[in-house]
Amino acid sequence: MRILVLHGPNLNLLGAREPEIYGTTTLAEIDARLREIAEADGHVLESFQSNHEGELVDKLQSAVRDADGVVINPAAFSHYSLALRDAVEAIDVPVVEVHLSNIYAREPFRRRSVLSGVCVGVVAGFGVDSYVGGLRLLISRLTA
Amino acid sequence: MRILVLHGPNLNLLGAREPEIYGTTTLAEIDARLREIAEADGHVLESFQSNHEGELVDKLQSAVRDADGVVINPAAFSHYSLALRDAVEAIDVPVVEVHLSNIYAREPFRRRSVLSGVCVGVVAGFGVDSYVGGLRLLISRLTA
Amino acid sequence: MRILVLHGPNLNLLGAREPEIYGTTTLAEIDARLREIAEADGHVLESFQSNHEGELVDKLQSAVRDADGVVINPAAFSHYSLALRDAVEAIDVPVVEVHLSNIYAREPFRRRSVLSGVCVGVVAGFGVDSYVGGLRLLISRLTA
Amino acid sequence: MRILVLHGPNLNLLGAREPEIYGTTTLAEIDARLREIAEADGHVLESFQSNHEGELVDKLQSAVRDADGVVINPAAFSHYSLALRDAVEAIDVPVVEVHLSNIYAREPFRRRSVLSGVCVGVVAGFGVDSYVGGLRLLISRLTA
Amino acid sequence: MRILVLHGPNLNLLGAREPEIYGTTTLAEIDARLREIAEADGHVLESFQSNHEGELVDKLQSAVRDADGVVINPAAFSHYSLALRDAVEAIDVPVVEVHLSNIYAREPFRRRSVLSGVCVGVVAGFGVDSYVGGLRLLISRLTA
Amino acid sequence: MRILVLHGPNLNLLGAREPEIYGTTTLAEIDARLREIAEADGHVLESFQSNHEGELVDKLQSAVRDADGVVINPAAFSHYSLALRDAVEAIDVPVVEVHLSNIYAREPFRRRSVLSGVCVGVVAGFGVDSYVGGLRLLISRLTA
Amino acid sequence: MRILVLHGPNLNLLGAREPEIYGTTTLAEIDARLREIAEADGHVLESFQSNHEGELVDKLQSAVRDADGVVINPAAFSHYSLALRDAVEAIDVPVVEVHLSNIYAREPFRRRSVLSGVCVGVVAGFGVDSYVGGLRLLISRLTA
Amino acid sequence: MRILVLHGPNLNLLGAREPEIYGTTTLAEIDARLREIAEADGHVLESFQSNHEGELVDKLQSAVRDADGVVINPAAFSHYSLALRDAVEAIDVPVVEVHLSNIYAREPFRRRSVLSGVCVGVVAGFGVDSYVGGLRLLISRLTA
Amino acid sequence: MRILVLHGPNLNLLGAREPEIYGTTTLAEIDARLREIAEADGHVLESFQSNHEGELVDKLQSAVRDADGVVINPAAFSHYSLALRDAVEAIDVPVVEVHLSNIYAREPFRRRSVLSGVCVGVVAGFGVDSYVGGLRLLISRLTA
Amino acid sequence: MRILVLHGPNLNLLGAREPEIYGTTTLAEIDARLREIAEADGHVLESFQSNHEGELVDKLQSAVRDADGVVINPAAFSHYSLALRDAVEAIDVPVVEVHLSNIYAREPFRRRSVLSGVCVGVVAGFGVDSYVGGLRLLISRLTA
Amino acid sequence: MRILVLHGPNLNLLGAREPEIYGTTTLAEIDARLREIAEADGHVLESFQSNHEGELVDKLQSAVRDADGVVINPAAFSHYSLALRDAVEAIDVPVVEVHLSNIYAREPFRRRSVLSGVCVGVVAGFGVDSYVGGLRLLISRLTA
Amino acid sequence: MRILVLHGPNLNLLGAREPEIYGTTTLAEIDARLREIAEADGHVLESFQSNHEGELVDKLQSAVRDADGVVINPAAFSHYSLALRDAVEAIDVPVVEVHLSNIYAREPFRRRSVLSGVCVGVVAGFGVDSYVGGLRLLISRLTA
Repeated sequence: MRILVLHGPNLNLLGAREPEIYGTTTLAEIDARLREIAEADGHVLESFQSNHEGELVDKLQSAVRDADGVVINPAAFSHYSLALRDAVEAIDVPVVEVHLSNIYAREPFRRRSVLSGVCVGVVAGFGVDSYVGGLRLLISRLTA
Repeated sequence: MRILVLHGPNLNLLGAREPEIYGTTTLAEIDARLREIAEADGHVLESFQSNHEGELVDKLQSAVRDADGVVINPAAFSHYSLALRDAVEAIDVPVVEVHLSNIYAREPFRRRSVLSGVCVGVVAGFGVDSYVGGLRLLISRLTA
Repeated sequence: MRILVLHGPNLNLLGAREPEIYGTTTLAEIDARLREIAEADGHVLESFQSNHEGELVDKLQSAVRDADGVVINPAAFSHYSLALRDAVEAIDVPVVEVHLSNIYAREPFRRRSVLSGVCVGVVAGFGVDSYVGGLRLLISRLTA
Repeated sequence: MRILVLHGPNLNLLGAREPEIYGTTTLAEIDARLREIAEADGHVLESFQSNHEGELVDKLQSAVRDADGVVINPAAFSHYSLALRDAVEAIDVPVVEVHLSNIYAREPFRRRSVLSGVCVGVVAGFGVDSYVGGLRLLISRLTA
Repeated sequence: MRILVLHGPNLNLLGAREPEIYGTTTLAEIDARLREIAEADGHVLESFQSNHEGELVDKLQSAVRDADGVVINPAAFSHYSLALRDAVEAIDVPVVEVHLSNIYAREPFRRRSVLSGVCVGVVAGFGVDSYVGGLRLLISRLTA
Repeated sequence: MRILVLHGPNLNLLGAREPEIYGTTTLAEIDARLREIAEADGHVLESFQSNHEGELVDKLQSAVRDADGVVINPAAFSHYSLALRDAVEAIDVPVVEVHLSNIYAREPFRRRSVLSGVCVGVVAGFGVDSYVGGLRLLISRLTA
Repeated sequence: MRILVLHGPNLNLLGAREPEIYGTTTLAEIDARLREIAEADGHVLESFQSNHEGELVDKLQSAVRDADGVVINPAAFSHYSLALRDAVEAIDVPVVEVHLSNIYAREPFRRRSVLSGVCVGVVAGFGVDSYVGGLRLLISRLTA
Repeated sequence: MRILVLHGPNLNLLGAREPEIYGTTTLAEIDARLREIAEADGHVLESFQSNHEGELVDKLQSAVRDADGVVINPAAFSHYSLALRDAVEAIDVPVVEVHLSNIYAREPFRRRSVLSGVCVGVVAGFGVDSYVGGLRLLISRLTA
Repeated sequence: MRILVLHGPNLNLLGAREPEIYGTTTLAEIDARLREIAEADGHVLESFQSNHEGELVDKLQSAVRDADGVVINPAAFSHYSLALRDAVEAIDVPVVEVHLSNIYAREPFRRRSVLSGVCVGVVAGFGVDSYVGGLRLLISRLTA
Repeated sequence: MRILVLHGPNLNLLGAREPEIYGTTTLAEIDARLREIAEADGHVLESFQSNHEGELVDKLQSAVRDADGVVINPAAFSHYSLALRDAVEAIDVPVVEVHLSNIYAREPFRRRSVLSGVCVGVVAGFGVDSYVGGLRLLISRLTA
Repeated sequence: MRILVLHGPNLNLLGAREPEIYGTTTLAEIDARLREIAEADGHVLESFQSNHEGELVDKLQSAVRDADGVVINPAAFSHYSLALRDAVEAIDVPVVEVHLSNIYAREPFRRRSVLSGVCVGVVAGFGVDSYVGGLRLLISRLTA
Repeated sequence: MRILVLHGPNLNLLGAREPEIYGTTTLAEIDARLREIAEADGHVLESFQSNHEGELVDKLQSAVRDADGVVINPAAFSHYSLALRDAVEAIDVPVVEVHLSNIYAREPFRRRSVLSGVCVGVVAGFGVDSYVGGLRLLISRLTA
């Protein structure tokens, strides 16, 4: 299986900024860990981060021919990017939404994601493990 | 007259994906049909699609010197892109908003467009004919 | 094809009152223009205006046996007449909703129409051309 | 006892249109069945349908001298006709509100009736039996 | 000056029903009193009551040629009849809105009138005197 | 047919407390009357009251094997017990919702029931007769 | 009868500022006109203006012993001064609320007055004539 | 580690009812699978289901002395049981919230859980795998 | 006088958990202190805690024959238990609502109690003294 | 300890107006009773009433140097005076909020107090005893 | 130019209370600094603080003859004093609104100011520098 | 100090379009003026405009290593770009938000900025001077 992992805006700062909040793990380290897990199961994993909504839409669309499943952390775009939602809806590929923090315990405007309604499911609140859990649940679904 | 036709995010997938919903007409075919109609009346028509809000804003701004009227299907951006709204408002060129589907019959969050208030008018719900109708209404207005 | 054109409350005043806002075209002239367009294509067109919601409901119901398609400008009834909505929903005949002005650019209470959700589509903001565009889109659909 | 049965807009289409949804029973048959039930108990029953809010208000007012109780299915008027509500409130005659469908299970705008607050009670969701049940509950109340 | 007095739905019941609430003055007596006041000042006064929104719209439209000012008690229509609002807005004739009761002290849904925004002014809460006060304020304005 | 009648919280106080409001009929008398009606038609009827939401859920679930239809007066649980709603939805047995008072004429927070959307229908406002009417409508449906 | 006329904040500027909007009549002239009307009928009239909510509350309370009726233009206090509302409610003296402009046609936050619910009635939209009309309606009520 | 798995109302019906929706896996099978996973890692797992909010609160409280972590599927209680929320908040034991379905894609009233704000994180939408994923994320956290 | 003191869900944890927040006083100690105060005045006091809404409803109902007044801390049930509200309303016994914390200074969803509207009064924010104050105010009322 | 008791607008009317509602106890008698209670415990108590928000703010500020605790009945100011809230927040002195009536059982706009969030606690619904209870709870806190 | 600086309620406490939050600068020192800046440019500056809304309205009105521009920190009045808003609107003098703290980052009820809509502009969040910046922007505008 | 000035979408049109509204000053001239002010104080200033949200996020992130403070006019992005908000929040650099117009006096959807809550402060309504004022307040803060 080919897995695409998408990271939304400002996630490129992970590990480099405010380690007391977001931990010291960098996005590169997260990607490495996810790739390792995927490859251990014989899957291929590609990662992509962007601060540009349009680039994430482009990449999601490419999943139609290049991926069997997607793990996405839409970050701030979770709360308003209907363009991303439409892209998720338009492709046949199952998409799993993950969040480092428990967004339901944060500011009111972060407690809902406009993407969740068209994703397979959501994993939120477990830090880097949200990615790991989301990836495993996606693989489980793809290989069921 | 020079007409600019703008297509918002995910419309590049038209015809290629979910034909049972969106039909089998591709965006290229829509553009060809619109160009044919415009040229039959002696007008010039340029088309542009992007998944990037910023590129659509750039293109809309260019209409000030390159176009006499605009037909736009803002797709998902209809519902939140105030940047597109401001671009429509900033230029003197009349802009007609079109939608393939009847957005007023869809999910609650799709029932209003933040662009409509600054466009000349709206045509929604007629499939590809929404573009055709919008183009003809624009030309009618430009040549009145 | 037999087309029924329905005009809602106060539209009988068109052309006679406040020409600087609504133009000098009378409803009779609009009807004449629409009939001309329909007949040029070999269709039959009947017009009806009423300030009475019940008469418009009666007329809409009659479309089941007397018309192949309807163009309706519900005017003020757009915003609250669920009786008209139910009538549109109850008949098999396709109904196109038109508005002279761009209702989405007016007072908040005019920005949604309770009929749109059961109509084929909406054309708004092009003055008399909204009727013309709506009629052509209806015919296009009926003859597709 | 003299019972008045009022049917709101579009109910005249019952049985004639969309039988798969509304059944094949016509309004005339409903009225016949209700009359039969009333007469079996020695009561007189009159039926009246209109798509005109004003005619229903007029008829409701006439109940003051012509009826001992009213069964009303306000249909679409349930959701906005304060004129009907005021008429119910103004007369001394007890009014029972009935609905063929379970309005509380339909679109959000149908889930409340502005008449319920001034009616004796409500019966909804039992198809033609809603009328039968409402009539029997009204008679039971009138003869208690 | 020619004054038109319009009475909305259920006001025909005044004096006949629930005298403990609405008093024993009939609508005919109110009209007589208003006519007397108008004629004492050399004005002509016509009264009209209807339970039909469409008839009130028709009558309001007729004011363009038949009246110099209008006093309207829209009763229940105050709260939803945008058709009446549009009629008031469409005619040049000044319209004064009156209410027998203080609607701002009643149920929440009666505390706003969709007509007030296009009327000259509002008089509410003084019983029959609301009509008298509204008439005098209208005459004062017409003869200023 | 086997009918299950469920009574929600505080209904055990019926007849014993505030007779001027709730009448002097006790719950036992209501149950007796319902049983009599059911048995007269050859049906079996079981009654159950509880102030415990969980016990009502348990009992509703038992209806799958023990009942052909349910009449429920959820009392205060009507307005928030999604657990009861889910139980109604989970079983195949038709459920009729009844209320002694006209809940739509009471405090705003009592005007909607979260159960109605998954029940067959609703009977409200007829006192003890609401149970009788609901039972008869249920039997009518079960034996249709 | 002794009449108290109360003017709320900023009304002392009347006539002196923005005459194109508020006219050239000063508050002193309004008071003189009202006094003249009252005295012509044999009544006594006292006027009081303040920008201080507390002073208006004090004055309203004094009406218990010093006045038989009150005309108040609460101006900006209309929209939030519950202290004034409580004062109106606490005294037995009838209070008539007046507004120079039609507040229901202004900004949304001006369209309701927290005082109206405890006043006898409201007169709004007639300029200085709102005071005159309010005074006459009050006197009519006091002398009925 | 000792893990407590809590199942909310109606989950006891899993597998037995509506298999086309909820699958054929019974709650006992889910519990067995979870126990197997936990024991494979050397942990102890206890399961508990109840339709009674109070019993779930009691059980959650017992976790203080009997468990190192909790997995809870609050089912319908997710949307209103502040008593469960307070119990989660009162104990030191980390609690993971899971849902079989993607609640964010269901009816509006199911799209938020009042428990999420005090849980460690949420896993929703993966069917039985939501439990598996939630359990693994909990163990990962407990053993980090 | 016989006083019943009711404690809602999770209050059994008082003193045992998070002493830095809730203090070290246990519920037993609170009950002892309250009993001492009551007995010093010659009254009898019974305490009852439950995490089960139904048990608290049952107990409240028993107050009709077993108590002259009730002090209740509904805890989380304050915010949604209409069953408890109905029980308070159904019994003649005066009920005083108390809260350890100042609920009006907490999360938005805790700032209103659905019980307050039917209780005699509320004491909130004084820790254990809220119980003491509530008890004294109840006794004062019972013995007035 | 020095206690300051503040009374908001219109409370000076207590005992003098509408004794059937507010009782016959005057504010002077309340103050005397409170002073007696305070002095019996060896404390000093000062009372102050004003209809002027600014005077109450001034007095509250003075508490910084002149009082050890404050009991305030903000009356109508409870619902909008953020100036009073800020004054309470700015001083170190603990403030207890009291209300004669149970404000949570009154009109919707009276059910929340903008001051409660910054006061120590609230006592409402016990008539004059609300003051007594609030005073005792304050003293208890000051002398703890 | 003559500049008037207005300080709203509780700002007289600046520097004296809670220096860790509001700093140690007193209002007198702020006024001195502002006067120094104004006089350095050849302008005259007067300062005024009040906890009384009415006094601030009076002072604002006086600006018509005594000032060429106003800097106002309305403090708590920002959020509800429509009387102040009306005073700003009524005078021709430009008014600049300043806030010590960034009100848009505080409690929801502080995030909007009812005065902003009629002021020239707003400066918020820079502590004492908000006054300095507001003053300079006002002078810049007055001398442009 | 190194200052970064960011301009949001459509601000590149300044001076070129609609000079009667936005003045004739171009963005280049604004940047030149700001650079001059900064350099006069010995600071370095860089400007950047984009219609692309992602480019503004990228640039904001770069401020961590390239700037000591940021002045941003987010234009239309003010009202929905949570990605920009997150970028502001993620970097340590102080950010000042400026607006040419007084956004609080414009359409409702422009009256709040989702960025304000994480910026140092806001300057709005002074045209080009908003930039100048914002820059000076930023420098003042950086050099304090």
